[in-house]
Amino acid sequence: MFFKHIYEENLAQASYMIGCQSAGVALVIDPRRDIDVYLDLAEKENLQITHIAETHIHADFLSGSRELAAATGADILLSDEGGADWLYQFDHSGLKNGGTFSVGNILFEVIHTPGHTPEHISFLVTDTAAGELPVMLFSGDFVFVGDVGRPDLLEEAAGYSGTKEEAARQMFYSLKKFKALPDHIQVWPAHGAGSACGKALGAVPSSTVGYEKAVNWALQIKDEDEFVAELLEGQPEPPKYFSMMKKMNKAGAPILGEVPIPRKLTLHQFKTKMNNQPILIDTRDKLAFAGGHIAGSINIQDNNSFSTWSGWMIDYEHPFILVAQPERIEDLTRALVRIGLDNIAGYIPNLESWARSGHELEVLDQITIDELKHELDAGEVYVIDVRNQSEYDESHIFGSKKIQAGQIPEHLDEIPKDISVILHCASGDRSSIAASYLLSKGFQNVKNLTGGINAWHEAGYPAEREFFSQAISA
Amino acid sequence: MFFKHIYEENLAQASYMIGCQSAGVALVIDPRRDIDVYLDLAEKENLQITHIAETHIHADFLSGSRELAAATGADILLSDEGGADWLYQFDHSGLKNGGTFSVGNILFEVIHTPGHTPEHISFLVTDTAAGELPVMLFSGDFVFVGDVGRPDLLEEAAGYSGTKEEAARQMFYSLKKFKALPDHIQVWPAHGAGSACGKALGAVPSSTVGYEKAVNWALQIKDEDEFVAELLEGQPEPPKYFSMMKKMNKAGAPILGEVPIPRKLTLHQFKTKMNNQPILIDTRDKLAFAGGHIAGSINIQDNNSFSTWSGWMIDYEHPFILVAQPERIEDLTRALVRIGLDNIAGYIPNLESWARSGHELEVLDQITIDELKHELDAGEVYVIDVRNQSEYDESHIFGSKKIQAGQIPEHLDEIPKDISVILHCASGDRSSIAASYLLSKGFQNVKNLTGGINAWHEAGYPAEREFFSQAISA
Amino acid sequence: MFFKHIYEENLAQASYMIGCQSAGVALVIDPRRDIDVYLDLAEKENLQITHIAETHIHADFLSGSRELAAATGADILLSDEGGADWLYQFDHSGLKNGGTFSVGNILFEVIHTPGHTPEHISFLVTDTAAGELPVMLFSGDFVFVGDVGRPDLLEEAAGYSGTKEEAARQMFYSLKKFKALPDHIQVWPAHGAGSACGKALGAVPSSTVGYEKAVNWALQIKDEDEFVAELLEGQPEPPKYFSMMKKMNKAGAPILGEVPIPRKLTLHQFKTKMNNQPILIDTRDKLAFAGGHIAGSINIQDNNSFSTWSGWMIDYEHPFILVAQPERIEDLTRALVRIGLDNIAGYIPNLESWARSGHELEVLDQITIDELKHELDAGEVYVIDVRNQSEYDESHIFGSKKIQAGQIPEHLDEIPKDISVILHCASGDRSSIAASYLLSKGFQNVKNLTGGINAWHEAGYPAEREFFSQAISA
Amino acid sequence: MFFKHIYEENLAQASYMIGCQSAGVALVIDPRRDIDVYLDLAEKENLQITHIAETHIHADFLSGSRELAAATGADILLSDEGGADWLYQFDHSGLKNGGTFSVGNILFEVIHTPGHTPEHISFLVTDTAAGELPVMLFSGDFVFVGDVGRPDLLEEAAGYSGTKEEAARQMFYSLKKFKALPDHIQVWPAHGAGSACGKALGAVPSSTVGYEKAVNWALQIKDEDEFVAELLEGQPEPPKYFSMMKKMNKAGAPILGEVPIPRKLTLHQFKTKMNNQPILIDTRDKLAFAGGHIAGSINIQDNNSFSTWSGWMIDYEHPFILVAQPERIEDLTRALVRIGLDNIAGYIPNLESWARSGHELEVLDQITIDELKHELDAGEVYVIDVRNQSEYDESHIFGSKKIQAGQIPEHLDEIPKDISVILHCASGDRSSIAASYLLSKGFQNVKNLTGGINAWHEAGYPAEREFFSQAISA
Repeated sequence: MFFKHIYEENLAQASYMIGCQSAGVALVIDPRRDIDVYLDLAEKENLQITHIAETHIHADFLSGSRELAAATGADILLSDEGGADWLYQFDHSGLKNGGTFSVGNILFEVIHTPGHTPEHISFLVTDTAAGELPVMLFSGDFVFVGDVGRPDLLEEAAGYSGTKEEAARQMFYSLKKFKALPDHIQVWPAHGAGSACGKALGAVPSSTVGYEKAVNWALQIKDEDEFVAELLEGQPEPPKYFSMMKKMNKAGAPILGEVPIPRKLTLHQFKTKMNNQPILIDTRDKLAFAGGHIAGSINIQDNNSFSTWSGWMIDYEHPFILVAQPERIEDLTRALVRIGLDNIAGYIPNLESWARSGHELEVLDQITIDELKHELDAGEVYVIDVRNQSEYDESHIFGSKKIQAGQIPEHLDEIPKDISVILHCASGDRSSIAASYLLSKGFQNVKNLTGGINAWHEAGYPAEREFFSQAISA
Repeated sequence: MFFKHIYEENLAQASYMIGCQSAGVALVIDPRRDIDVYLDLAEKENLQITHIAETHIHADFLSGSRELAAATGADILLSDEGGADWLYQFDHSGLKNGGTFSVGNILFEVIHTPGHTPEHISFLVTDTAAGELPVMLFSGDFVFVGDVGRPDLLEEAAGYSGTKEEAARQMFYSLKKFKALPDHIQVWPAHGAGSACGKALGAVPSSTVGYEKAVNWALQIKDEDEFVAELLEGQPEPPKYFSMMKKMNKAGAPILGEVPIPRKLTLHQFKTKMNNQPILIDTRDKLAFAGGHIAGSINIQDNNSFSTWSGWMIDYEHPFILVAQPERIEDLTRALVRIGLDNIAGYIPNLESWARSGHELEVLDQITIDELKHELDAGEVYVIDVRNQSEYDESHIFGSKKIQAGQIPEHLDEIPKDISVILHCASGDRSSIAASYLLSKGFQNVKNLTGGINAWHEAGYPAEREFFSQAISA
Repeated sequence: MFFKHIYEENLAQASYMIGCQSAGVALVIDPRRDIDVYLDLAEKENLQITHIAETHIHADFLSGSRELAAATGADILLSDEGGADWLYQFDHSGLKNGGTFSVGNILFEVIHTPGHTPEHISFLVTDTAAGELPVMLFSGDFVFVGDVGRPDLLEEAAGYSGTKEEAARQMFYSLKKFKALPDHIQVWPAHGAGSACGKALGAVPSSTVGYEKAVNWALQIKDEDEFVAELLEGQPEPPKYFSMMKKMNKAGAPILGEVPIPRKLTLHQFKTKMNNQPILIDTRDKLAFAGGHIAGSINIQDNNSFSTWSGWMIDYEHPFILVAQPERIEDLTRALVRIGLDNIAGYIPNLESWARSGHELEVLDQITIDELKHELDAGEVYVIDVRNQSEYDESHIFGSKKIQAGQIPEHLDEIPKDISVILHCASGDRSSIAASYLLSKGFQNVKNLTGGINAWHEAGYPAEREFFSQAISA
Repeated sequence: MFFKHIYEENLAQASYMIGCQSAGVALVIDPRRDIDVYLDLAEKENLQITHIAETHIHADFLSGSRELAAATGADILLSDEGGADWLYQFDHSGLKNGGTFSVGNILFEVIHTPGHTPEHISFLVTDTAAGELPVMLFSGDFVFVGDVGRPDLLEEAAGYSGTKEEAARQMFYSLKKFKALPDHIQVWPAHGAGSACGKALGAVPSSTVGYEKAVNWALQIKDEDEFVAELLEGQPEPPKYFSMMKKMNKAGAPILGEVPIPRKLTLHQFKTKMNNQPILIDTRDKLAFAGGHIAGSINIQDNNSFSTWSGWMIDYEHPFILVAQPERIEDLTRALVRIGLDNIAGYIPNLESWARSGHELEVLDQITIDELKHELDAGEVYVIDVRNQSEYDESHIFGSKKIQAGQIPEHLDEIPKDISVILHCASGDRSSIAASYLLSKGFQNVKNLTGGINAWHEAGYPAEREFFSQAISA
């Protein structure tokens, strides 16, 4: 048996290749959309990809199943459980609870495990060449390492109101099936730490049934109502693009053929496109962005959160242009097409040509902890904390307004234009996104707290919540 | 004044950027089709490309003028000389003998210099900021370093019969204009050594009027008829694709937008495409090709002659697939689109998947000088010398048949199928192309002389032409 | 808890980083010698490497512990079990059975598990932030997925005669400790499929105690003598370099500072070095090597077995030169320094300069299945099967001589020089190594069976062992 | 004849390869220190480098002659003219005025052309295969395109006081030799636009004798004293490292073997080195540097002036560390070793690890034109113009202090510490160097004028010198 865990860090998303070497065939579970990783791996291992399977209709990335099938001729195996609303709308072989299929010597049993979504299935795998004992469970967004899938996404992100409690109850019953499995089975979920599909995912990629039974909080609660209440509490805000993913994954993602690397725009081409007011995404370092950027651009830095923040900030209907280094364009494009943001109108490598052709760059003012204290003492400022609710609850600057960075666009009306607006997060990354968005919408007195609230701790200031209270309340 | 000589080695083709730094503008002469080299240079030098000019309708590469205009918004300046048959068929600003135009402080005078082609013009350039003296002549395919443009291409390659003598006479009169220029002027032609557009081009990129007047053979002959006879003699075979270039450059090359890098094919995709019998171009080393290749493939090695041999061997109407390393695909694609071979259906990086999926590789037998001697002694063999006529005339294996490698497809009927056919060139590269073509057409007793005729010299054998005579005549 | 499985495919070697995110610290288990993979990972994860541990004195790769300690200032934790002969000879913190240490919140318990080696220890890991239950066992070369470590290496490879039976008995008792662990614990060994440290390692990177108890052959045998006999039978030949590794890892590997990328040699430099008769390792494809190579060079192809075959074929005392592509030099150098082959005198990218400066290339004759049949019919040939004993035992060409490729140097006397010698393996890779070695030693009638015995099966010939018997015995 | 112009843009330095294809040999004139460009070119062209020549003892780069000789075995041909003080101090073949030597069919005549330096020679080249007429002059730092070499470097940079007038007179007589050459000869100098070895070098790489005779200012002046006066006037400040180059080039540069790529430092290693207070060179964009940098670092951006500014700012005796992207390290290292700055102690790719380990980054305040006006109105500021004298003379901010950026270290005493110090240049690059230097020396009220004086023009402000006068004088 061949096994490979394929992890995409931007989305904290795991896919898997399971192969039978003696038959020379393999299956891929939950492929991402840039599929060359699977093709290259199969070629290296001398395996032919003959099967593709999904655990459920994903909300956080665009499935690569159709792309991979087009490249390999493999069959797509998908859940037909969950009812009419949750049926995939493109050609596939349907799977039902209790069903089985084989890939060479490897036997896959289908277990219907609703909760995260109604159609969700898991795969119990047995290497029949080694024995009759199952070896692994591919649990998708059902059981994670240390957590279970969130049942509220359909309601929060996809607009199916009133479904989340019902889903939480389904999860409770699905977990009973999990508990019935033997301790020794490896558990390989669809996400790792950092995914928005669960609230407390561990940084260890896999677990075992026995360990999760003993340690996972969700498997300790015996009472259904208590479980439901606990599960629904404190889930983070789902990114805005999740509803789009649900819709596209159900209907079937468009086939790309290959990753569509955007072109480098000449100054002439860039100026022409600028006339149509495209979205400008500046992927440079927040310090460089603060030092100077093209007016109107949003600063989504090129790091592990690039996909997610692009999903929050970029309009799917609107073409957009990247400011990015040529050697990074391929990776950035992959990060974007993985969530279906295919509408890239090109990129420019830096701001030099633009600046030299007579355009002044805009600056995003940075402010230090000391300057913030000074401003607070001196008069009126409006401090926005753009972190998540849970971070805010733990400790925050007294008097600060809480607006999560991705939700800034919906809260423009609440933000004053006549006084100084200071944004901060933990270390300045998310607040650079939010501050750049405000600048792009015409706000002028916007400043970013350099170093964020972390700098405050590092500066040795007391960690009490009341730290700034006097200044602000004064 | 800014000046840059931009040389493309595959086609021995020179283009030029001339700029005026104080005005921030530049002109490109005879751009190639993959235009990023000009865009990057202009960006680096902080110049805007505002003008594009051509010396003539090129036969050996596809012009990038329209591509560059689309990317920059520049004007295209083209010859309106030479008569109705030679008018460009797309939008441009027309140039006539004696006309002038300026790019910032740089003055360009148009000189009609027919001979290579009827519409051919040259550009005499003066840096008016420095003085009134001309500094350079951009001579296109009129005067090269040590040679002049060949007047026979239209007849030989483009099928305009009966034109070459007339063209040679025009060249004679155009050269009188050249002789009238002052000695100090730099001469920058459109080609360097290795181009098929002239017969004796030097490996020095530029010359001066004074030096060419003293040294260039074509400027020493006083008598018109003698000149015409000399000029028409001994011109090499023009590559087959030249007629296609003429047609496309006159009508206007299709605009690519960017270099269309082909995709890597999965085994599944490759097999599917193989059903439609594509042309297979194997770009690997001749030794690797000899060791094993997919039956039916042609071996055009990835070296400086790749463009030209592709132009000889690949059908413009037929899709083709490359066997090439991923890191070489971009350069190879550029080499192909420079001559308009845009019909690339994909590539495979090596033969492993194909071989592992149950296909035996075909071998091209190699033969050493010693083995050749042995075969010649032992019995009947058919030796084909695939070099150019001029190389053959200098020295060759007695009794060998002369068929230039690119013309093998037209001479299949002459080649015996029942005895051993041994191909050779100077060092084994061209004969590997020719031999692979024969294999692809079903010839079975084909062998390539390892090392070619060079190996024979290096082995210390006497260089007389009669060397092999006895064996073959016996 | 942070966890990362770091796998080096050339040696099928696994190392691990286990970190505590809240304390910002990490430990690396069994690091390889090119340590940037750990440095980069730690930087990305914002962890400081404070501890380094080894499971045992490795025989198959050079440990990177000292290298990593020099780069990070981390402590090295090593076994002090096994007796005086097996004590590490450089500074370290000693570990004993039953001892514990912590890295942030992560608790490590030391279990002495001799068998593969006397000093071997395993690490049982508990994430104390999650609970008191152990989560993983790092089993080194004690328990693999589907196998256990071989006890015979010290005797076979390191020359400690009479130790292997004693070691096998120790393994039997160590396995009792393993059986006492709970089923749910993940098992992460030091090797995957393809390592020479065990005989039947699976291609799945990890397992669980429960699964191994049920499936691993070594845990099924109840009788000690039966276990010992079974364990000692059929172990593959250990590569020649293993004894060198043992010695160096005990004494402490030299610290490199960084991977010492060798220089590209000019023709002048190469010729100078060739006067001192260096070892020449030609890493090109076997087909290209067969087509032409520098006389005297050994063909170790650039693939996943490069390290191991280099360990078999290259003398540690002698400088050697690579024939390799510039873009592959870094990876190849890494593969070599991982087993301590630091004596690289440079590389040449191809054979062109050499060939053009007047040296004829040597050809390695290839032979097809059909030609082999023909040769067998025609007269005397000597067929050498260079595969492992176990492959040979399964099916082989009747009458062929079995000499494992890496042992060819010790068997030169047995090989005839006056008749045709045909080498084969499964697919032609190993036999290309062996054949090139014979050529380098002056054998002249050497041929490589293209495609190996696999081609025979694919050609549809019957798979019986007697297939060729008549021809050879005739 | 083979000819190649090899241009190094950082130093505006030209070297040349001239080869004879029929003999397969080549000469390199004035090689730079990273010699692979010559080795690769020779290999591609199938030429053997047998000769190396220099026009003079260079002041602006470290010669690669000894490096290239070590790699190829070629002879080094150097001037023995100019007297005892100017003799090269290492092994070479000496050249004298009127001497000749051949490289295959190419004939080189030596012409002693003192003026820039006493030992300076030029090479007149004849392709004897083409005729007896010379084709090119390699003029070194004697005649440039539109200028002649400066005679004051020995006095200004190397400390030979009282030599510059004598040198200017020698130049006058050397130019008489130049005027005696025929018009048609190509002139290829050792420098292009941007070099500090002349004052008005054109951006065209070559010229002809006839064109220079007509256009070059230095060849128009008939009176010796007038010529001397004109030549000595207005020469730019020579970079500080020139004296070091003179000394090293005379004695013979150390041989590197290959470009010594520095290692990436781990945080542990960086911290250890920081204890010894190394020079820190931050090569990032000026905007990113302004946004945040490690206290004490100098901002020399990674652009075409990197070599020169490193020569101004870095102490040859002191180890230094780069902040630079890994993919840029090779180019930066080349730029440094070209001027002998071999003392690189490593690099860090970014500031993240440093910042995350608890160090606050320092900010360089940026100021806009509008803010500058505001500051000028509000009170006391000290404006430093760090451009060259000639730029300053053309137009400057009234009341500003002129200190060329590279001379800031010598003028620290003149700069006030108690009021706001604002630095500017043309576009903010040089002033970022100067401002970062002041910060590193403990100045606190330092600001950089974003966009420099160019931004002022672009903002549409009047270009008169008195623009700011009222504010400052008030």
